[in-house]
Amino acid sequence: MCQLLGMSANTPTDIVFSFEGFRKRGGLTDHHEDGFGIAFFEDGGLRLFHDDKPSAKSPVGDLIRHYPIKSLNVMAHIRRATIGEHNLANTHPFVRELWGEYWVFAHNGQLDNFSKPHQHYTPVGTTDSEAAFCYMLDSLKQRFSHKPSQEKLFAALTVLCRELADFGMFNCLISNGKWQLCFATSLLHYLTRKAPFGVAQLIDTEQAIDFGTVTTPNDVVTMIASTPLTDNEEWQQLHVGECVVFSHGTVVFQDCPKNARIMSIAEGKALAKKIGACD
Amino acid sequence: MCQLLGMSANTPTDIVFSFEGFRKRGGLTDHHEDGFGIAFFEDGGLRLFHDDKPSAKSPVGDLIRHYPIKSLNVMAHIRRATIGEHNLANTHPFVRELWGEYWVFAHNGQLDNFSKPHQHYTPVGTTDSEAAFCYMLDSLKQRFSHKPSQEKLFAALTVLCRELADFGMFNCLISNGKWQLCFATSLLHYLTRKAPFGVAQLIDTEQAIDFGTVTTPNDVVTMIASTPLTDNEEWQQLHVGECVVFSHGTVVFQDCPKNARIMSIAEGKALAKKIGACD
Repeated sequence: MCQLLGMSANTPTDIVFSFEGFRKRGGLTDHHEDGFGIAFFEDGGLRLFHDDKPSAKSPVGDLIRHYPIKSLNVMAHIRRATIGEHNLANTHPFVRELWGEYWVFAHNGQLDNFSKPHQHYTPVGTTDSEAAFCYMLDSLKQRFSHKPSQEKLFAALTVLCRELADFGMFNCLISNGKWQLCFATSLLHYLTRKAPFGVAQLIDTEQAIDFGTVTTPNDVVTMIASTPLTDNEEWQQLHVGECVVFSHGTVVFQDCPKNARIMSIAEGKALAKKIGACD
Repeated sequence: MCQLLGMSANTPTDIVFSFEGFRKRGGLTDHHEDGFGIAFFEDGGLRLFHDDKPSAKSPVGDLIRHYPIKSLNVMAHIRRATIGEHNLANTHPFVRELWGEYWVFAHNGQLDNFSKPHQHYTPVGTTDSEAAFCYMLDSLKQRFSHKPSQEKLFAALTVLCRELADFGMFNCLISNGKWQLCFATSLLHYLTRKAPFGVAQLIDTEQAIDFGTVTTPNDVVTMIASTPLTDNEEWQQLHVGECVVFSHGTVVFQDCPKNARIMSIAEGKALAKKIGACD
C-alpha cells in the first residue's frame, strides 16, 4: 500500500528526523517507489513538494533533509501506483482552496467503482483518491456556504469519510493548516511526544535522536504514520472507522464507532494486497 | 517592481540557465528579496516550489539549479512586497483548479482599490494579485460552465486583463500547462529561440551558453521576462495593453490595441516606483 505521514505541533517543528525514516520506504526499506509529495503549512501559506522519483533517492527528498522547514502541520505521502498511472498529476498530497484556505489531502487505500458528478471541484489526475477529495470538498461547499464551526465541520467530515470507506479502503489525512484529520479503515498510527522527551530510534534506518536536546518543555508534537516509524515508543493505532483530529499536537475531536476493532499490521497489509490497494 | 519569468517550449526543456540569471535579481543584482516561486507543468501535473527567502540565496533555488526539471511550461516570480505582507501565502505563482486543470498565475504591478465579491474562488493571502486571479477564474467559471474553445477563452482572458489593468499596473502570466498567456501594461519581453541556435550571454551573471550544443534542430523555446535576461539576443517587447499567448513556444494568439505604444524600460521602472508597485 501507499503510506501516509503527518505531523501536528504546537510550535514550528521540522520533520527531518521522521521524514528520513519515512522516505526510506520509497525504494529502500519498502517498495512505494512511484513518487512522493510533502506539504508544509506556514500560517495559511503552503509549500508543496512533489516528485515522481522514489522518495529514497529523490533530490527533492534530499532538499527536505538539508533545509529544515519548520511548520505546525505537515503531510507526506509515498506512492505505489494502482489506480491512476505513475505521473505527477497523480502524486499526493492534493490541494484545493476552500473558504479561502488551502486544504491538503492524502489517501492510502483504494475505492472501487467510486464515481460522483463534479460540482465545483474536478480532479486533474486519474486517481480514485483525488476524485474522493473533490467529492468531499464539493459536499462541504454545498452544505456550508461559509465555514461552519469546527464541531460541525469535523462531524461532517467523519460522515463523509465513512461514506467513502464503504467503497473500499480509505485511510486518509486532511489538513487546512490549522488542524489535521486522520481517518482509518485499516492502518493508521499516531504518537504524541511531549515532556519529558526521550530518545527515538527509527525503524527504517539506524538513526536515533534524543528529543530532549532539541525541544523545550512546552513542545507537543504528534506524528501520524501508516505504520510506526520508531520501535522504542508507544504508538497508538486508530480503530477501524475512527476519526481523530489534531490541532497543535493535541486531540481536538475523536469519533470512534461502537465496538470498533483494531486491525493488526499483518492483517492490514494482507488486506491491502488482496484488494490490490497499492501493495 | 516584482519580476516575472516564463517559458513555453515544444520539447521538455529545463530552465536552469535562464533561472540562474533571473534568481540573481532576488537579492544580488536587484532587490526583489521577499520570496519567490516557480511552477513546472508536467502534463497536467504541477510542481510548485515556493520560498520566502530571497531567490538568490534560497536552498530551493539551489535545488532548481542542481535538479534540471524538464517542462513545456514554466512560470516564476520574484517578489518585492508592497500590498500584502511578506509571507508564504502571498508568494506567487498562485494556483487554482479550473475545469479539471491547474491554472497558475503570477502578477507584476499593483491594483488600487481592487475589490470584488468572491464566488467560487477566495484568496488565501492578502495580495491584490491573488484577489485579481480569483476574480478572473470566477468570471470565467460564471461565463463558461465548461471549457470553451481556445479562441473564446483567450478573447475572454484579454478582456479580463484589460479590465484589471484599469485598476493600476497589471503585467501577468497565466498558464494551464498547455499554453502560457502574457499580458502587459508596462514591461514584459519575450524571445523565441529556434534553429540556428547561438550563444546566449546572461546580464545578471557572467554565465553564457551555446544553445547549439544542447538542442535539436526542431526545438522551439520561448522565454518571457519582465526585462531581458540576455544582452546579445533580440528580445521583443509587448505593447501596453497587448495580450500574447504561446503554446509549444509559438504564438497562438495575439491581441494588441490599435496605436498601442511600447514603454521604455526606464519609464516602466519609474512608473512602478511612482505608484509604489514593488519598487
